[in-house]
Amino acid sequence: MSEEKENIQFELTKELVGQVKQLIKANDDKELHKLLDEFHYADIAEILDEVNLDEATYVIKLLDSETTSDILTELDEDIRERVLKNLSAKEIAEEVEELDTDDAADIILELPEERQEAVISHIEDQEHKAEITELLAYDEDTAGGLMAKELVKVYETWTVAGCMRRIRGQAEEVTRVHSIYVVNKEEKLIGRLSLKDLIVAKNDQKISDLVKVNVDYVNVNDDVEDVAKVMAKYDLEAIPVLDDNEVLLGRITIDDIVDVLKEEAEKDYQLAAGITGDVDSDDSILELTRARLPWLFLGLVGGIGAFLIMEGFQDTFNKYAVLFFFTPLIAAMAGNVGVQSSAIIVQGLANDDVKGSVNNRLIKEMLLAALNGVILAVFLFLFVWVTKGEINTAFAISVSLVAVIIVAGLIGTFVPLFLDKRGIDPAIATGPFITTSNDILGILLYFWIAKMILGI
Amino acid sequence: MSEEKENIQFELTKELVGQVKQLIKANDDKELHKLLDEFHYADIAEILDEVNLDEATYVIKLLDSETTSDILTELDEDIRERVLKNLSAKEIAEEVEELDTDDAADIILELPEERQEAVISHIEDQEHKAEITELLAYDEDTAGGLMAKELVKVYETWTVAGCMRRIRGQAEEVTRVHSIYVVNKEEKLIGRLSLKDLIVAKNDQKISDLVKVNVDYVNVNDDVEDVAKVMAKYDLEAIPVLDDNEVLLGRITIDDIVDVLKEEAEKDYQLAAGITGDVDSDDSILELTRARLPWLFLGLVGGIGAFLIMEGFQDTFNKYAVLFFFTPLIAAMAGNVGVQSSAIIVQGLANDDVKGSVNNRLIKEMLLAALNGVILAVFLFLFVWVTKGEINTAFAISVSLVAVIIVAGLIGTFVPLFLDKRGIDPAIATGPFITTSNDILGILLYFWIAKMILGI
Repeated sequence: MSEEKENIQFELTKELVGQVKQLIKANDDKELHKLLDEFHYADIAEILDEVNLDEATYVIKLLDSETTSDILTELDEDIRERVLKNLSAKEIAEEVEELDTDDAADIILELPEERQEAVISHIEDQEHKAEITELLAYDEDTAGGLMAKELVKVYETWTVAGCMRRIRGQAEEVTRVHSIYVVNKEEKLIGRLSLKDLIVAKNDQKISDLVKVNVDYVNVNDDVEDVAKVMAKYDLEAIPVLDDNEVLLGRITIDDIVDVLKEEAEKDYQLAAGITGDVDSDDSILELTRARLPWLFLGLVGGIGAFLIMEGFQDTFNKYAVLFFFTPLIAAMAGNVGVQSSAIIVQGLANDDVKGSVNNRLIKEMLLAALNGVILAVFLFLFVWVTKGEINTAFAISVSLVAVIIVAGLIGTFVPLFLDKRGIDPAIATGPFITTSNDILGILLYFWIAKMILGI
Repeated sequence: MSEEKENIQFELTKELVGQVKQLIKANDDKELHKLLDEFHYADIAEILDEVNLDEATYVIKLLDSETTSDILTELDEDIRERVLKNLSAKEIAEEVEELDTDDAADIILELPEERQEAVISHIEDQEHKAEITELLAYDEDTAGGLMAKELVKVYETWTVAGCMRRIRGQAEEVTRVHSIYVVNKEEKLIGRLSLKDLIVAKNDQKISDLVKVNVDYVNVNDDVEDVAKVMAKYDLEAIPVLDDNEVLLGRITIDDIVDVLKEEAEKDYQLAAGITGDVDSDDSILELTRARLPWLFLGLVGGIGAFLIMEGFQDTFNKYAVLFFFTPLIAAMAGNVGVQSSAIIVQGLANDDVKGSVNNRLIKEMLLAALNGVILAVFLFLFVWVTKGEINTAFAISVSLVAVIIVAGLIGTFVPLFLDKRGIDPAIATGPFITTSNDILGILLYFWIAKMILGI
């Protein structure tokens, strides 16, 4: 969490990585220190992501644990896992000692069960140990799983002067003081103060006179995404976490929320693209296959569905072969419209700005799809009419295109709303899921309507 | 930016909105005050998003400008625009007086040119006016366009005691003190202090002894997205903004970055779904059409392309009708694979973790696509063989499926990398763009390979 030793210009170059590898090879610890000490731990982490496991471990063991503990938190998850394998429980415990309780708990949670015990048992600072153990008990997706125990707390009965004295001690423990939390003797949160308020106040004032009551807070069991929404909406940089009795348990800071928001966005983006699980472009081919193949298989099944439908209409074929040549167009339009409307709904749900009844939504999307559909259909009609000279066929194809687009829009709107009501992440509705179902339905609708109009 | 007067439980109910509308109708200002004063400005903004323009304006004119100025910053952009139309330049100036310089500048920038002048001329606080005018000059997408002038600044020559005295004054101006910036007499940034450091320090210590040098900073012309990356990477809550001579101009706080990150994520998500421009589900049908139709039109053109290709292969048709029934499957697979691989690259580029040469990327994607393709092709082969009993056709279709998937993967990987090199946002490469081009290419490849294998 340090703001020091870095500026925007850092760039990870081949040369730099090569230089580090060289120094490790030469066991030139002195030079290596000189080189790496210039960098922010987040940058050293980027360098270590590029070297091999032994080299990374070498650096981790070389630098002092104050730096390396921070580096560990910034490493690629899979690389960190492998580095930790190379460290003894005692060595990991030393790293953990240096970390804030929330980061410490996150690292320990990544370890295999049996090692977790061992590492915890090696933590010397008893209070730190107890706090970490407490955090390990909370579900990762709750406020409790995200919060840190580090915070500055004062009692309502204290004076400003007394406060200043007391918090000098506490503040040294806390990387950043956002708010000073004021509690009563039962440790229940009754309000907050900013350091600013304290500095601006007179020394003999009572805290109870300065405290700002009804401060924002979250319950320890609140969902992380809800915490993120609240902090973003109210521009909070820290929020206290209370238990059901309003006892102050910890605090969540905005930098953790920034990470939550980024992960959320990436997850939704990948789901929309038909990728499950948190993979990135540097993962192994096997990991990427596991994330991508299931959705492709869904597409395959959908394609086979489309095949069966078209085969079913084979008889009309010899007369109107042209109909079949437009199936990719129909499928594409059905897919695109479905993805567009579902994406808008999914995003609206994420921002809580989907208001009004489901029916109004569907009516609006129907009008929207109809408008787009008619515009597109006119072009298609003209194209078929001019190139094929068959006005009936042109008419049949265009009319069914409009119908297909409307239905696709309705499905794209309804499915995410339905999933959301059922408590399922609507984001899975975008991408391949919608495309595939709309492909099939669209093609079926298309042939059915065209057949009717052409009276085959 | 206040942390007061709200907690996570706020919920926007029909009843509440109805109650507000009632009180406005009855001109019951006293009750309206009582009701709304309970809420955080961000919640009042949500309420005003739900009432009609006159009602919203009524509330804005009723409440004191300290609250309403914050409400304005939280309103839906289009609603804010309409509300501001109902306010006189003087009234807007009063709102602006209450806002931090960055929010003030944002509001003014949304006004039509001629009104901007008028509003600025009505700002009474001359310093505030000068600072806002300065901010208006910077490009919205740069650090200068995002920064605020409010910050706490001390000179290296001061003592801790002197500092404390001096910053009491400045601090009252600043919503939150993240860092105290230390400058020399030329106003050049030489480092920073935290309030914590100051509190923990002795009164007679010189600032120059406490200052933390090489602090992070950004240049006033740096791109907003780069600023966001730096602040997220280094977990910064505020970063100073310097001009080319390292003179301290302002600071950017994390809550603005949170907004930038959210907007970025939404833009990419929408692009991937074939939606351009910043629209949300509550926008008008016309706005939504403008955002969606162009991509659908692209799909239409692609579909016509597919039609022409299939027509070109019509002669082979009577013998192998079955080939045509699989075109939707081929198109779907080509599209899905393309979107998957492009999404991973786009995301990798956004996170700066696309390393190594383009060739390695393409080779990796080729292997990945080949692996997925073969697995899928085996299923398809068995299906066709079993259901149609034509082993040659089954073989032809499966082999071309593999080829199509590999090419689709390569295009999905190459196009975003290419666009990025050209300085174009690679996000436009996902979604309809890739799907459409892959549809056409896939179908062409499919018929061509199948034809060869079947020796037609």
